[in-house]
Amino acid sequence: MKTVIALDAMGGDNAPKAVVEGAVLAVEKMDVAIKLVGNKDVIAPLLAATTKSPHLSILHAPEVIGTDEIPTTAIRHKKQSSIMIGLKTVKEGFAAGFVSAGNTGALLAAATVVVGRQPGIERPALGVLLPNRKPSGEPGATLLIDCGANMDCKPLYLAQFAKLGADYLTKVRGLKNPTVGLINVGVEREKGNTLAKEAYELLETADVNFIGNVEALEIPAGAVDVAVCDAFVGNVVLKYTEGFAKNFMYMLKDELTADVRSKIGALISKKAFGRMRQRFNQDEVGGAPFLGLKHLVVKAHGNSNAVAICNAIRQCVLFEQAEQG
Amino acid sequence: MKTVIALDAMGGDNAPKAVVEGAVLAVEKMDVAIKLVGNKDVIAPLLAATTKSPHLSILHAPEVIGTDEIPTTAIRHKKQSSIMIGLKTVKEGFAAGFVSAGNTGALLAAATVVVGRQPGIERPALGVLLPNRKPSGEPGATLLIDCGANMDCKPLYLAQFAKLGADYLTKVRGLKNPTVGLINVGVEREKGNTLAKEAYELLETADVNFIGNVEALEIPAGAVDVAVCDAFVGNVVLKYTEGFAKNFMYMLKDELTADVRSKIGALISKKAFGRMRQRFNQDEVGGAPFLGLKHLVVKAHGNSNAVAICNAIRQCVLFEQAEQG
Repeated sequence: MKTVIALDAMGGDNAPKAVVEGAVLAVEKMDVAIKLVGNKDVIAPLLAATTKSPHLSILHAPEVIGTDEIPTTAIRHKKQSSIMIGLKTVKEGFAAGFVSAGNTGALLAAATVVVGRQPGIERPALGVLLPNRKPSGEPGATLLIDCGANMDCKPLYLAQFAKLGADYLTKVRGLKNPTVGLINVGVEREKGNTLAKEAYELLETADVNFIGNVEALEIPAGAVDVAVCDAFVGNVVLKYTEGFAKNFMYMLKDELTADVRSKIGALISKKAFGRMRQRFNQDEVGGAPFLGLKHLVVKAHGNSNAVAICNAIRQCVLFEQAEQG
Repeated sequence: MKTVIALDAMGGDNAPKAVVEGAVLAVEKMDVAIKLVGNKDVIAPLLAATTKSPHLSILHAPEVIGTDEIPTTAIRHKKQSSIMIGLKTVKEGFAAGFVSAGNTGALLAAATVVVGRQPGIERPALGVLLPNRKPSGEPGATLLIDCGANMDCKPLYLAQFAKLGADYLTKVRGLKNPTVGLINVGVEREKGNTLAKEAYELLETADVNFIGNVEALEIPAGAVDVAVCDAFVGNVVLKYTEGFAKNFMYMLKDELTADVRSKIGALISKKAFGRMRQRFNQDEVGGAPFLGLKHLVVKAHGNSNAVAICNAIRQCVLFEQAEQG
């Protein structure tokens, strides 16, 4: 039987067009059926123009939660929004997961209310895979958690993020006993702010393979499989990665075009630069799971294109397969 | 008259050798006289072996504060340490500034006690210049403050960091009305953790050119001249920059050597890669000033080599010239 995924057709900067296109891509590539949640009057014509696939259906949701709406207010007043209806579908068992590129805060708040937290979990968190490169040269990824859900954290939340992240890597990516590090300003245990110091103590006795503090310096070198922090730090690191990688490529372009010889060399090496861009192409990752919920909810980047949406759906499918298998 | 700088000869991973060599470089290149603060029995032979310059002298300090010592305890018990004696020299007016690659926390604690804070300033902060590239292609730098001093901050501290940072850029680097941004997870004013939200309000009425929240994404693109945050976030960003830039170059090397054509192109473009490395060569920056103190104290990177020490001294000289001019 096909995995059924609910997709927020109205969320994100490029919705609904890019989202619908992403869904079309997904049903072409994967063994999946998609419920496009949103305003049927807007989605139906888009869908009719692109595909006749029987694996795409529309679930009408007349309201939309905007990016700048206050999460708690939005979810209270917009019960008929694509986010609320999409999550309800998952909760009721009509879909295995929900993907949205919409308002992160609203998605989290709604997911917590509608889908609910796993027993014992205080706060669900957003886990994002950052590309890394081990000193051996082997490319890999570090799960950075929390990247966007909990701005002000208690130490216990961080210890739980560690467990959620490690379990995710074990289950979905097949890692054995993944290492967990606490992002900190030094490796010594007495380093850091109050939150880090207290979280360190909890992590020492947590049911994870805790290897201590990890300096941000070591994250790109793949020093740990799971890097734990509050969502303020995590979101800064995540967005900084994006901005830095982009700007680094611009700088490199400046230098490679600053003299004729280098310019010629760069033209010859063109393929290598293409592969480099691919390593940091966030469309390939597509989305980040909210971990700690009773069902799967994946947040896609606000500016997702069709490829990113398709890959966020792939994350759901892989997760569902791991759950079943 | 030569600017006199006190230099912690015993601080840093490569002390005293690299520090003494850095001092020798500095007196060769700049109009400066240097007091090497540390154990004379160790420094004198090193000095005798390298130079006869009359602009280098030794100020004996028999004790050393180690990297892993607890700052407050260390400064209470080691009054005869190079950090304490060096700072005292500055306070008493025998040197215009103090440079140390030693224990950051101890340096800050000692500087606050010995040199003292500027009137009205709650907490001195460490400001570091990160290389950026404006969308126009113009290379520049963003002052990231605080990068290492205050792990747990009150909103008022952040507002003061903004002012200290802006004043520094105006005075030392000649920027007119530098822009200030608050590092945050979104541009909207209601975004962020409690600290960021409260700091935003104070920054709106502060005597700086505050342009609002800045996402980490925009920092490498030079969106602001001064980027304000607590030292936990700042230190993570600073160290992440270092690790990411290094690892990015490794990744690029992997890709450039993965096929023969790219390999040849890379050889031809060699000069461009050299210039790229130079952009992120922290030895060129050398050190970061603690802002908000009554006198100048510059923290050099723990693993400073001679060039980095020399450039940290240059920062002091420039600062002193700006003070005088």
